[in-house]
Amino acid sequence: MNKMPFDKYRAFTPISLPDRQWPNRAVTTAPIWCSVDLRDGNQALIEPMSPDAKRRMFELLLEMGFKEIEVGFPAASQTDFDFLRLLIDEKLIPDDVTIQVLTQSREHLIRRTFEAIKGARKAIVHLYNSTSELQRRVVFGADREAVTGIAVTGTKLIRDLADQMTGTEVVFQYSPESFTGTELDYAVEITEAVMAAWGPTPEKRMIVNLPATVEMATPNIYADQIEWFCRHIKDRRNIIVSIHPHNDRGTGVAAAELALMAGGERIEGTLFGNGERTGNVDVVTMAMNLMTQGVDPELRLSDINRIIEVSQECTQIPVHPRHPYAGSLVFTAFSGSHQDAIKKGLSALRQSGANFWEVPYLPVDPADLGRSYEAVIRINSQSGKGGIAYLLEQEFGLILPRALQVEFAQVVQRRADASGKELSAAEIWKHFEEEFLKADHPVSLISHKFEHHGENEDGVMTATVENGVSRHTVKGRGNGPIDAFIDGLKAIGIKVQLVDYHEHAVGRGANAKAVAYVEITGRDGTLSGVGMDEDIVAASLKAVISAINRRERR
Amino acid sequence: MNKMPFDKYRAFTPISLPDRQWPNRAVTTAPIWCSVDLRDGNQALIEPMSPDAKRRMFELLLEMGFKEIEVGFPAASQTDFDFLRLLIDEKLIPDDVTIQVLTQSREHLIRRTFEAIKGARKAIVHLYNSTSELQRRVVFGADREAVTGIAVTGTKLIRDLADQMTGTEVVFQYSPESFTGTELDYAVEITEAVMAAWGPTPEKRMIVNLPATVEMATPNIYADQIEWFCRHIKDRRNIIVSIHPHNDRGTGVAAAELALMAGGERIEGTLFGNGERTGNVDVVTMAMNLMTQGVDPELRLSDINRIIEVSQECTQIPVHPRHPYAGSLVFTAFSGSHQDAIKKGLSALRQSGANFWEVPYLPVDPADLGRSYEAVIRINSQSGKGGIAYLLEQEFGLILPRALQVEFAQVVQRRADASGKELSAAEIWKHFEEEFLKADHPVSLISHKFEHHGENEDGVMTATVENGVSRHTVKGRGNGPIDAFIDGLKAIGIKVQLVDYHEHAVGRGANAKAVAYVEITGRDGTLSGVGMDEDIVAASLKAVISAINRRERR
Repeated sequence: MNKMPFDKYRAFTPISLPDRQWPNRAVTTAPIWCSVDLRDGNQALIEPMSPDAKRRMFELLLEMGFKEIEVGFPAASQTDFDFLRLLIDEKLIPDDVTIQVLTQSREHLIRRTFEAIKGARKAIVHLYNSTSELQRRVVFGADREAVTGIAVTGTKLIRDLADQMTGTEVVFQYSPESFTGTELDYAVEITEAVMAAWGPTPEKRMIVNLPATVEMATPNIYADQIEWFCRHIKDRRNIIVSIHPHNDRGTGVAAAELALMAGGERIEGTLFGNGERTGNVDVVTMAMNLMTQGVDPELRLSDINRIIEVSQECTQIPVHPRHPYAGSLVFTAFSGSHQDAIKKGLSALRQSGANFWEVPYLPVDPADLGRSYEAVIRINSQSGKGGIAYLLEQEFGLILPRALQVEFAQVVQRRADASGKELSAAEIWKHFEEEFLKADHPVSLISHKFEHHGENEDGVMTATVENGVSRHTVKGRGNGPIDAFIDGLKAIGIKVQLVDYHEHAVGRGANAKAVAYVEITGRDGTLSGVGMDEDIVAASLKAVISAINRRERR
Repeated sequence: MNKMPFDKYRAFTPISLPDRQWPNRAVTTAPIWCSVDLRDGNQALIEPMSPDAKRRMFELLLEMGFKEIEVGFPAASQTDFDFLRLLIDEKLIPDDVTIQVLTQSREHLIRRTFEAIKGARKAIVHLYNSTSELQRRVVFGADREAVTGIAVTGTKLIRDLADQMTGTEVVFQYSPESFTGTELDYAVEITEAVMAAWGPTPEKRMIVNLPATVEMATPNIYADQIEWFCRHIKDRRNIIVSIHPHNDRGTGVAAAELALMAGGERIEGTLFGNGERTGNVDVVTMAMNLMTQGVDPELRLSDINRIIEVSQECTQIPVHPRHPYAGSLVFTAFSGSHQDAIKKGLSALRQSGANFWEVPYLPVDPADLGRSYEAVIRINSQSGKGGIAYLLEQEFGLILPRALQVEFAQVVQRRADASGKELSAAEIWKHFEEEFLKADHPVSLISHKFEHHGENEDGVMTATVENGVSRHTVKGRGNGPIDAFIDGLKAIGIKVQLVDYHEHAVGRGANAKAVAYVEITGRDGTLSGVGMDEDIVAASLKAVISAINRRERR
């Protein structure tokens, strides 16, 4: 591949703002959310949404709690116009929700826009024109004055039409489009001219939307631009500063967050960042980022799977498996040490009864989004004992002792490496069964009887075992049945010692079984065994035999 | 959906750094790139890479220009171990490339790691242990001293083994894992203890890698953490500060960029951001972000399609259609005003012969990535005249006059709205043909003869036309054939005037045709027509008839 032609690009000129304040701030309240899914999002689809899809998307947005929704560019598209009329005529817009419509500054488009919103309780009329140095030069061939003229003329017409309108409250929004490419002094100049033509007050503020139509620099520069703008604009309190980032450099969410710290109050974005090119800023990620900082996001995301489903159906754009908070893999831990830490973190959280979520590698409780960690845990050759142990506990109720976790992880790793594939819970169980529970060869237990008379006497185990060749009845003595069984085994040449023993019930009531785990040591080191039976004694004897047989098989 | 349980989360405590310097800086050189695709990326795959896939990925990384590549965790996985041996034994590692291997601080793992790297010219041995307050408390139940002990013990063993090793230069890297959740003073303390055990010098620096193992706050906080660390660590010049961000909050790229401004010198990341959960930081986006600021990215991305292809094959994780620089939709403009601006911008760039790329809505020249804007332009009901005109020119060689662009855009919009679907180039052409070129009803041209004798005389057109009912031969006079033809049409009741006329050749040589565009005005306003013929006169007469017939059909 070739060396990259970097010298045909130039660095963005930084903003001089040595006393910037935004890096000392944090976002402590949710912004006003405005969904542009039905406009900026829709216009960037390979197949724009059908009327039916638009309606489903609109209903989803309402359910999520959006109070401002840009529903289209009705003067430019008959589909958008018709959809708007449907919303208004069929009274589908709740009283606390305001629709927003986009228009360019042309008389026939503005008039048509007012036809589109007729009868709505309230509407934001959103006027934009491109103000960047580049677009003035190569697209419009117009100087600052001419471009300001376009914006002011449109504003005045909207002012007139709004004044004539009855029954519809018109909120005015102006976007100096391609703001990030606009000289800041000119952005302030044109906005002030528009403000003068509209006449906002602190009681009836207009919205000034400052789009990163194209991301052109690191996100701190956008924050500098927003802070500079907010500090220089006249009558700041007469406007709501709205932020509309795109994601060309992959830093749209960061730019939006820093811009809120810099003075922005409102966010225009889309679900999962649909929109032109790399998309608009993703409001789902932004809202979840707020929530995980303890801030009420003022959007509802408790059923993220359904939000994904509706969104994918309407846009035909997939949500990436690694999409923050929403992707299919984001609550999956593959690394063994991660899995182990998550297991301990969850257990510590349960035990402490703490009010705050804190689990390593899980910055958010999947349950808050209607998801689960358990459902997506995967085991492969990279998975360690923690993940496997967690899975066996969650899926099958087995609480493996630590030594057994280590041994079984090695077993799984060996088997997983051979195939290179991920293992399902069922496959893990199969490995566990084959390795431990079916370890009844060469030695197997036929019958057993344990007698223990009086506290000061040893108990006596009488057990019949088969050693692959012939059947033997052995008798041994000890504190308990395991000790006594091991003692008895000496008679047929099996010499081991018990190192550790655990046993617990699995299941409840009539279906309950006991599972016993033993660690024994013998001529070639320590080895674990597992036994399961309805009889707790049988389970523990089987565990001993399991360990012995594993040794024999080596 | 439910209100979100935000009160179970807490805000990240900000770093006190009022005199932070990073917001005044920009990234002006590429960092040292270290790919962790084969380790952090691979361990997070549903199906880890096969040995063959690993090799293809390794070769791609080399071709892209990576000089440091983490190839695995050989002590934890036999597959990783075997792959490393393959690289070394088959001499697949170029002399200017250093492999990196990860290990935990356990004696048997460290010793096994050294077995794995035996014979390599040079290797980075990467030791990590988790240092966060949360993990110390809930995972390890260990205090600061104990956790520092783990790191120092491992470092000393690596020091010893490195000293004993012959033929392999060992570079040491230490990661206080979960750095973002570690108290900064402790992060400095443990790193200084490790540095004391290793003994780096300005000539032989060690790498200190500061992972945002989990993104926990806005990216400016990570930058504050990095700047704080760099300002407080002893002997800063003895270390290379490495940055390893994840993307839990969707701001991994931003965090990496701000961290470089804050003192980071090296980036660990993956292609397209593969990795645990939401992934590691995406080095492709980072490199392109540098390039578009005029900085040599020191990575090669000139064939992005092949990089995507290999990456998708190896990871089985798709690149999202809106992924910065790489997604299938990112060089697509859907909005008519965007398309129009792009067309003008490209044309201005050609005309000016400027050295620097600047085109509205296209922050990067798609050609620099082996992509094209032309190939992916799509037309739908939201597309304006610019996009359609551009497509007709690129695909079919037709250079539509402005009035015709407007008329045809409305035609397309009407037709596209009806179906709601995107239109392919072929469909656009079909619409164009049906609307203009097949407009031979009710009037059609049968034959024509134009005679023009001497400059001071009018020319004479004799043409036979059919008007749907009967055939007429008309005769008219004028400056040229079109004037004369229009003059002749009066005799059969067709009264129009010519407003505008364009004609150009399409194709070359024997296959060349002429295409004529006329704008005529008559009883109901102005209308365009198009004619195509090998004969330039016939083409222009057909254009007149096309306009007339379009009027008749209304």
